Amino acid sequence: MNPPPNITDPLVLFMPSGKRGRFPVGTPILDAARSLGVYVESVCGGRATCGRCQVEVQQGNFAKHKIVSSNDHISPKGAKEERYERVRGLADGRRLSCSSMILGDLVIDVPQDTVINAQTIRKAATDRVIERNAAVQLCYVEVDEPDMHKPLGDLDRLKVALEKDWGWKDLLVSPHLIPRIQKILRTRLPNQPELSEGKWGVTAVVHRDMDSSRPFIIDLFPGLKNEAYGIACDIGSTTIAMHLVSLLSGRIAASSGTSNPQIRFGEDLMSRVSYVMMNPDGRGAMTQAVREAVNGLIGKVCKEGNVDRHDIFDCVFVGNPIMHHLFLGIDPTELGQAPFALAVSGALQYWAHEIDIDVNRGARLYLLPCIAGHVGADAAGATLSEGPYRQDSMMLLVDVGTNAEIVLGNRDRVVAASSPTGPAFEGAEISSGQRAAPGAIERVRIDPETLEPKYRVIGSELWSDEPGFEEAVQVTGVTGICGSAIIEVVAEMYLSGIISEDGVIDGAMAGKSPRIIQNGRTFSYLLRDGEPRLTVTQNDVRAIQLAKAALYAGVKLLMEKQGVDHVDTIRFAGAFGSFIDPKYAMVLGLIPDCDLAEVKAVGNAAGTGALMALLNRNHRREIEQAVNRIEKIETALEPHFQQIFISAMALPNKIDPFPKLASQVKLPPRKTVSEGGVAGDATPRRRSREDRDARRSRS
Amino acid sequence: MNPPPNITDPLVLFMPSGKRGRFPVGTPILDAARSLGVYVESVCGGRATCGRCQVEVQQGNFAKHKIVSSNDHISPKGAKEERYERVRGLADGRRLSCSSMILGDLVIDVPQDTVINAQTIRKAATDRVIERNAAVQLCYVEVDEPDMHKPLGDLDRLKVALEKDWGWKDLLVSPHLIPRIQKILRTRLPNQPELSEGKWGVTAVVHRDMDSSRPFIIDLFPGLKNEAYGIACDIGSTTIAMHLVSLLSGRIAASSGTSNPQIRFGEDLMSRVSYVMMNPDGRGAMTQAVREAVNGLIGKVCKEGNVDRHDIFDCVFVGNPIMHHLFLGIDPTELGQAPFALAVSGALQYWAHEIDIDVNRGARLYLLPCIAGHVGADAAGATLSEGPYRQDSMMLLVDVGTNAEIVLGNRDRVVAASSPTGPAFEGAEISSGQRAAPGAIERVRIDPETLEPKYRVIGSELWSDEPGFEEAVQVTGVTGICGSAIIEVVAEMYLSGIISEDGVIDGAMAGKSPRIIQNGRTFSYLLRDGEPRLTVTQNDVRAIQLAKAALYAGVKLLMEKQGVDHVDTIRFAGAFGSFIDPKYAMVLGLIPDCDLAEVKAVGNAAGTGALMALLNRNHRREIEQAVNRIEKIETALEPHFQQIFISAMALPNKIDPFPKLASQVKLPPRKTVSEGGVAGDATPRRRSREDRDARRSRS
Repeated sequence: MNPPPNITDPLVLFMPSGKRGRFPVGTPILDAARSLGVYVESVCGGRATCGRCQVEVQQGNFAKHKIVSSNDHISPKGAKEERYERVRGLADGRRLSCSSMILGDLVIDVPQDTVINAQTIRKAATDRVIERNAAVQLCYVEVDEPDMHKPLGDLDRLKVALEKDWGWKDLLVSPHLIPRIQKILRTRLPNQPELSEGKWGVTAVVHRDMDSSRPFIIDLFPGLKNEAYGIACDIGSTTIAMHLVSLLSGRIAASSGTSNPQIRFGEDLMSRVSYVMMNPDGRGAMTQAVREAVNGLIGKVCKEGNVDRHDIFDCVFVGNPIMHHLFLGIDPTELGQAPFALAVSGALQYWAHEIDIDVNRGARLYLLPCIAGHVGADAAGATLSEGPYRQDSMMLLVDVGTNAEIVLGNRDRVVAASSPTGPAFEGAEISSGQRAAPGAIERVRIDPETLEPKYRVIGSELWSDEPGFEEAVQVTGVTGICGSAIIEVVAEMYLSGIISEDGVIDGAMAGKSPRIIQNGRTFSYLLRDGEPRLTVTQNDVRAIQLAKAALYAGVKLLMEKQGVDHVDTIRFAGAFGSFIDPKYAMVLGLIPDCDLAEVKAVGNAAGTGALMALLNRNHRREIEQAVNRIEKIETALEPHFQQIFISAMALPNKIDPFPKLASQVKLPPRKTVSEGGVAGDATPRRRSREDRDARRSRS
Repeated sequence: MNPPPNITDPLVLFMPSGKRGRFPVGTPILDAARSLGVYVESVCGGRATCGRCQVEVQQGNFAKHKIVSSNDHISPKGAKEERYERVRGLADGRRLSCSSMILGDLVIDVPQDTVINAQTIRKAATDRVIERNAAVQLCYVEVDEPDMHKPLGDLDRLKVALEKDWGWKDLLVSPHLIPRIQKILRTRLPNQPELSEGKWGVTAVVHRDMDSSRPFIIDLFPGLKNEAYGIACDIGSTTIAMHLVSLLSGRIAASSGTSNPQIRFGEDLMSRVSYVMMNPDGRGAMTQAVREAVNGLIGKVCKEGNVDRHDIFDCVFVGNPIMHHLFLGIDPTELGQAPFALAVSGALQYWAHEIDIDVNRGARLYLLPCIAGHVGADAAGATLSEGPYRQDSMMLLVDVGTNAEIVLGNRDRVVAASSPTGPAFEGAEISSGQRAAPGAIERVRIDPETLEPKYRVIGSELWSDEPGFEEAVQVTGVTGICGSAIIEVVAEMYLSGIISEDGVIDGAMAGKSPRIIQNGRTFSYLLRDGEPRLTVTQNDVRAIQLAKAALYAGVKLLMEKQGVDHVDTIRFAGAFGSFIDPKYAMVLGLIPDCDLAEVKAVGNAAGTGALMALLNRNHRREIEQAVNRIEKIETALEPHFQQIFISAMALPNKIDPFPKLASQVKLPPRKTVSEGGVAGDATPRRRSREDRDARRSRS
């Protein structure tokens, strides 16, 4: 459209993208940005009424770019922009790019109102900017009034206007909208911007997801409609988490969660699959329960964000394979048995109403792809969020739950697996274990000399050896040990020599401290005497060893597939990762050796991935392609697995060295103790058989 | 895929398409046909199980094509084809093209099982062959069983198979199907053809309409599914007509009709619009009524054709604009007043269930575009059927009802209009008029010498002057005059000199025959004395004149737009056209002068157009593009209209010559008679004012 750029035309640089180009004097900034592919929102299509296209001129001499940028190099505000400023207000320095023409060289800042608040989205993670390219676009147009001589229908003239002003071709229309179009076009709003004579001003909500599919008009509003929302949702087995976000600005209006009501059908995934197998209506009941919970949660975030649920036009969902299937009404039975066949693994699109999601009637719904029968769309979301395939360094991404999902790779190759860690990390199957809740011990330290412990309890900032601790915990009591503290206490017991590298509590230490207590053939460590009495038994240590060995063995197999002996960075996704201390996780040998500074918890990365796919449809194509390329490893079928698992039972590992950890943490000298409690040489073979037996009885 | 053709390769000619090409020895006939774009159906994908790909070898020396074709030039039947012949039977000379290889030069006949039975489809019209390219395709594939090492979902492996065997890319899936896929894939039928080891045989129903949209899997069946149906339906104000047709063979399984139950809300279109305006629930009630009637009619044709309604996968609908809108749930009020704005004019696609049509859950529904506010999708269907835009000759296509739709054009240009003819042609507003039913007079002749009439009555083949007539009509009686007879009696009155070219019954003739009877200031013609007494009054003649003048004026305006003074061919669509005699229509000046051999009734051309769009999706694109090009003329807004209308009041016309008619029919000498009944000169001006008044009082 523009004439070819001339070397004498002004040079315009857009920040933060850094894209630049020459444009003839008089070119609107908005047009210049678009021709370079710089994303600037606009709803009104250059009528200076929506205010979405704001930019800022950066003033000064940008020697590096050879640009002297100044306010003189942009046209002064015209009548329309001044009207907008008067009516709606315009912050100092802000200009409407649709109404500002290029007069000379410029550096233009496109404000990133899309910075996602770190506290809301992800704990202990950095802010992140998601480049916006939502599937939903609001397009204000002025439609010709009907003309007997050109008897094109209302909808058809709307399409003509949308093609002329916005370039939309081959638009389809959401069928529910067809009977409503007539009336919407004929509705005049009192606060409507000045319309051209004989024109009907409306805002079309256009949805375009797949590039090879035709775009859809999914809703239509009289006059200027200036806001559209979407939801990003992670359906977990225990918790459903949701963000409500503006599709125009990227602003998060609300984030919230609710417990998954399917828990009443079964605590863990496999018991829910069993419920479906045992009850003819089980699948239907669970599908209904999760959809109702999602609809309830939508109500909750809408209330928090003061948003009408009918202003939600797009939805992105992630979840593990069983949640994914139950949400879609698919029988998950096949996922409970080999070969763990997914009914569908690719990304899916729906009309939201087709699966009973109560938002705008024309809203669309997108589900990220599943990676494998045990590595779901949630893992795909986390993978999109952390992007191992975008990096040169070898990244390990783990999401620890009853099942640990493991993704390992870099831009050359990504492999994935799942490991059945069991519920030990969540405090289940531990004699004094409990879920993270007020009263639960969450941090533990053991003095290597005296073997005396100190601990902290959820609900108080005080350590147990600090004055006022007992008063502080009087209300909640000290009721048990939660997952993060179990990691710590076992690691501290190892660091202080109470347990050997093979995980045996050393009975010989009983002479050194009264906290080492004999129970028949084995010993326990007394963490807190009182009501209840909290101990760490030999069986507790074994449960943690089995869980961490399962996880580590999965990781190790993936490392073998990749041909690497170490990883560069580690990302812990999920709630568990947010609470554990990477140092102790590594001391236990839960994760491979790595620079501790490179081990990070990333919170609900699955939800962040869903949010990315919501705000930018390119991320949908990105993760679809990435998942296609990910190689899936079924760890249980690998001949090495057993041997690697046995080595991984030791702390941190029987074979693998932890040089980086050793340089940062003083590891105890190697010693072995037989389960009877006397230090010496325990044969790995005997122990391994016991471990396997223990593992079998657990499953 | 094939190597480039070599001049020494065998030459294969396909009939009736005439497409030809050279193919290496050993190429399957099916592959050769497809590579040339010759349409040969196949469901099983070359496994010799579906039998859809049958062809015949033409034997002999085809000198014109330089081909000697013989059965030796095709491979003998192999084991698979012999199995098919044994199990399913194969007619003499027929071969399965998937299993027959080219050995030498061949002329191959692709049997056109798609010939549409003329009696079923269109009255008094020639057979026609519709080239098949249905939107629905049945595709048998064998899907890999799940594999833990390649954890692609069931649906995703199905897609892989459909892409590999059938070339489908980017397939979407109908959402209702997703929860069912697992089970369908795992169902083994006892009569299933031999499957490859470790494969699941299923037939996918793939629907692809728009070229720019992605194809959809709309249903899935275990094993081989070998039949798919569609319906083509014309929703008329009075009657709903439907064809049930095999999408694979083009065979019409059943055709039927039912009355439109909306009649209880109003006899004609405008009274139904009024009903919507007056009753808050009127639109909803009429939408529900027509959809229920369509569903009932589907039940009827399915019963007749012995077809399960869930085997209907595609539907095409046409209808006038008000029926079109009411069927879709759109308020038609705007169509009742200027500017007669259509809510939507373009072609539309739905899932059939979205508008409550009870067929297969994944079935699609297509509506042809509307041409203008008074020229609907039914006129588009007739236009597709008769195809003025496909011809060099100037074709006039008229569908006469309460409103006449007129299309005029050739491949260079097509114009369209509607004319408010009123219900006179249907026997309404005529003193002795009635609907066509047993007992109604349908044919009339008047002896020019004696002025004595003879007539025929629906239900008897005898003329009234033949022996036994009175006995023959004793049961029904002679109850009135139907539309076709009104045309004839007025034309015969003109030809016999009873009425002047201005339509005045000549009182002077009363002396010549007692059948000319005075009623106050005007005269009548006594057609039958008895009970009831049937006369043609001056008002009756006036009503016919007004109706035919309205139609002719519309036609004439379109001829003016086209710059022609005659038309080459005339097509009468609709029931009216099937019963009237073109000669009398032309004597009346209802249609312009034309060679009588070129005037044809084409029955329900709208329904035929719907059928074409059902059997070949290229016809959808064809009519969409044609309608886009059609110029719509609003006759009432044309300054000429009044003058043309006045001239058209005369028989056959005041100004326009009818040379072709005059060469085939002896027209009476011109004479004018004033309404008082005395032959002389009646000024056109005075008469025209009366006509206008009469017209106003009617509307």
